[in-house]
Amino acid sequence: LAHRLDGIPPTIFSAMSALAARTQSVNLGQGFPDVDGPPDVIARAVHALEHGLNQYAPGPGVPALRQAIARHQLRHYGLELDPDREVVVTTGCTEAIAAALLGLVNEGDEVVVLEPYYDSYTAMIQMAGGVRRPVTLRSPNFRLDADELRAAVTPRTRFVLLNTPHNPTGTVLTRAELQAVADLAIEHDLVVITDEVYEHLVFDDHEHVPIATLPGMFERTLTLSSVGKSYSFTGWKVGWATGPAELVDAVLAAKQWLTFTSGSPLQPAVAYALDEEADFPRKLAAELRARRDVLCAGLAGIGLDVRVPEGTYFATTDVSALGWEDSRSFCLALPERAGVVAIPTQGFYDSDAGRHLVRWAFCKEQSVIEEGLARLAAAD
Amino acid sequence: LAHRLDGIPPTIFSAMSALAARTQSVNLGQGFPDVDGPPDVIARAVHALEHGLNQYAPGPGVPALRQAIARHQLRHYGLELDPDREVVVTTGCTEAIAAALLGLVNEGDEVVVLEPYYDSYTAMIQMAGGVRRPVTLRSPNFRLDADELRAAVTPRTRFVLLNTPHNPTGTVLTRAELQAVADLAIEHDLVVITDEVYEHLVFDDHEHVPIATLPGMFERTLTLSSVGKSYSFTGWKVGWATGPAELVDAVLAAKQWLTFTSGSPLQPAVAYALDEEADFPRKLAAELRARRDVLCAGLAGIGLDVRVPEGTYFATTDVSALGWEDSRSFCLALPERAGVVAIPTQGFYDSDAGRHLVRWAFCKEQSVIEEGLARLAAAD
Ligand SMILES: CSCCC(=O)C(=O)O
Ligand SMILES: CSCCC(=O)C(=O)O
Repeated sequence: LAHRLDGIPPTIFSAMSALAARTQSVNLGQGFPDVDGPPDVIARAVHALEHGLNQYAPGPGVPALRQAIARHQLRHYGLELDPDREVVVTTGCTEAIAAALLGLVNEGDEVVVLEPYYDSYTAMIQMAGGVRRPVTLRSPNFRLDADELRAAVTPRTRFVLLNTPHNPTGTVLTRAELQAVADLAIEHDLVVITDEVYEHLVFDDHEHVPIATLPGMFERTLTLSSVGKSYSFTGWKVGWATGPAELVDAVLAAKQWLTFTSGSPLQPAVAYALDEEADFPRKLAAELRARRDVLCAGLAGIGLDVRVPEGTYFATTDVSALGWEDSRSFCLALPERAGVVAIPTQGFYDSDAGRHLVRWAFCKEQSVIEEGLARLAAAD
Repeated sequence: LAHRLDGIPPTIFSAMSALAARTQSVNLGQGFPDVDGPPDVIARAVHALEHGLNQYAPGPGVPALRQAIARHQLRHYGLELDPDREVVVTTGCTEAIAAALLGLVNEGDEVVVLEPYYDSYTAMIQMAGGVRRPVTLRSPNFRLDADELRAAVTPRTRFVLLNTPHNPTGTVLTRAELQAVADLAIEHDLVVITDEVYEHLVFDDHEHVPIATLPGMFERTLTLSSVGKSYSFTGWKVGWATGPAELVDAVLAAKQWLTFTSGSPLQPAVAYALDEEADFPRKLAAELRARRDVLCAGLAGIGLDVRVPEGTYFATTDVSALGWEDSRSFCLALPERAGVVAIPTQGFYDSDAGRHLVRWAFCKEQSVIEEGLARLAAAD
């Protein structure tokens, strides 16, 4: 194995989904829904397959999809993008992250990143030779502390890697929190890379604010998203990066060698989804909100301290109330104890601030969530 | 742009396909067919889309596909693989190349590689911090010279990156040529990474020999291939790497952060293709052979020296007979002069051994090839 991979464990999501399958557990671990997105979007992919869209898509993505992404950014956020220069299609947001970091980060560059980290961030920062500088979101509220943020920046800092809505904590960064990031980015001439795959999965009166919409930020921000979470097609792996042409070019420059292109017959269907099923994500969020509440009430009912998430697919609990010191042991024992799989949040922290924290997915059907809760309640 | 991308130009294939579209030229550049693969394979992808295979596939690939790949390697080459440990599915062969190099190559490692290079090799070797050591295939015969091969190996050499059938030259490495590589790999303890995407597209009495089948080679060889060329679905971007578990693990270790997974609804269709349309690639090769002959005869007819390829989609000509010193100028002028796009092979050489060489694709319908030839014949 090359040194750039030293000490990077296999992705926890694969490991935990494999464990769920092996133990026939209810999988409240990896974040994917068990009901697919709109049938007419599927019909569109079928049409593409049956009508000759099976050869290489252009490297930057099919024009219809780039145009639909630009329209989406305009409709939702008032951002005007040139679909030919300011949009690139990727193999899910994962590839957008990988290509952004490989395309921009030099050996020794520091990247300020929210801790707990989504796991591909730490892996790809390291693979790109960068150094992560955590800003920790702490239980029980998981807010971004402006002083801690400021303290994380050094003369070697060149990037901020954000995610909002934040996986795993469920925090939706407020306009004020984002303004603190923006102020710092402008002051220190940083580029912001922001993973907004849960942009539409926001609950109650919380609002998703793309940092690219703050004054002075568009020109220094790469915004990443995908079809997976917004439209319940996580397996299609069609994502995108948008932003100023220089930053989008850097993504394309790396990405062309990672996969060249992908998902030719799926790309037109994603374009259709963005244009013609524009309401689907809002409806999905409303359903998810109800399932969130079922899950959170059930988890509280078995004695867990629950942080009700503002967005994403995930609720976080403190398991120390149940006498568990360590979320990893808790999650490794859980399939045996209860027939349920959840994710130990500790794996996403360098510090021990996640020691007691466990992440539970509520993107599953309500009956599945209820079965999981019943099993937990029945466990010793 | 990060330094790892310094001096790496955008992929020529995108540039030339864009030029073809802009100038309404006959595109004999980028290698993709204009007729899709088997309709029953498409039907299988449709079935997957309509039956709930739209969420994340497992990181290593869906088990049915890994098993089908293992059966394919056994049926064609007598290689027995454990589908759970010796096979990983990737986003086309492009991602297999990227992940193999990022997963294995350390800063300063030397990689012996056949020149002319397929363009992603040079880019990804550089992005992985490696140093390429060319072994040049020279016109008119493009054979691998065992002495030149031996001379390319130094104490810093750790890898050989092969492709056979070889793009762009159309050479199919003989068993003797591959044995020379194998001898050297064993003597110097090198790992061989071999891109065999044209494994089934071999003509006349030429035989594709996977280097992994030579004595002592399985354990040091990563073999890469994909559905794209064998089944005329280049846009699906479903590829794979096979080999000993340690090497396959290195691909997976890098790949999980590049895309995590991709093409969930396409993977079962590729499994079906490998098992149930096992004869398709042979029939495709027979058709391609006929089109190769049409193209080669036509190119010779306008006064070009043609190297008739042994495999792949591509024929190579020497354009100096027409008075062109430089294949780049030839190819840049060609859309205007003739309404045809072809690829300047010089772009794949460091040395000037490709100065006069142009690559022409014959994976297009015969009528398209004939139209291209007619345009060339009519040009001044
Ligand atoms: C790419 S697999 C992980 C899915 C996901 O986003 C999560 O579970 O956090
Ligand atoms: C990945 S785009 C290039 C397609 C191809 O293999 C070629 O034209 O050589």
